[in-house]
Amino acid sequence: MIAPTPNPPYYAVIFTNYLTENQDGYHEMAERMVELAKEQSGYLGHESVRDQMGITISYWRDLESIKKWKEEAEHQLAQQLGREQWYQSFKTRICLVEKDYGFER
Amino acid sequence: MIAPTPNPPYYAVIFTNYLTENQDGYHEMAERMVELAKEQSGYLGHESVRDQMGITISYWRDLESIKKWKEEAEHQLAQQLGREQWYQSFKTRICLVEKDYGFER
Repeated sequence: MIAPTPNPPYYAVIFTNYLTENQDGYHEMAERMVELAKEQSGYLGHESVRDQMGITISYWRDLESIKKWKEEAEHQLAQQLGREQWYQSFKTRICLVEKDYGFER
Repeated sequence: MIAPTPNPPYYAVIFTNYLTENQDGYHEMAERMVELAKEQSGYLGHESVRDQMGITISYWRDLESIKKWKEEAEHQLAQQLGREQWYQSFKTRICLVEKDYGFER
């Protein structure tokens, strides 16, 4: 689903990644992280697609919300397991959304 | 491939979309637009994934480069056909990438 974000400005965290072959526990953790993110203050929505490469974008009210989410305890564990086990490579980009526009048939 | 972007700041254009059932000519045009984008001044790279939803992110040096690309003649035609025929819905977000970090095994 295209995330129903409010009018800009707001923030986007673009997480582009490739997985390793060791995916033990990954799927459950990914689902848990989506549920946990939704509970965070300042969370505005997310979009996620995977083919071989995965792109997950989460949208946030401000940098403070992003910082708190990065430091959340369960999320810290997920990030650690991601580096140790699940991700072959990733890039995270913190972005200020300055403008948006859309189209719906 | 994760786009090998330079150090921030730079810009990202996040294009999230769903396709219609009428995809005549879409694939060829999408490939042509990738080739054409690469030739534009200020183009830094792109990442694209589709499952049902598609996310394509293109990276640019500055807002001026994004504006010129939006107004490029062939791209204008592609945008028009997209609205008339190929896209069920889309959202475009223009973003200033303030910070990034990555990981590679």
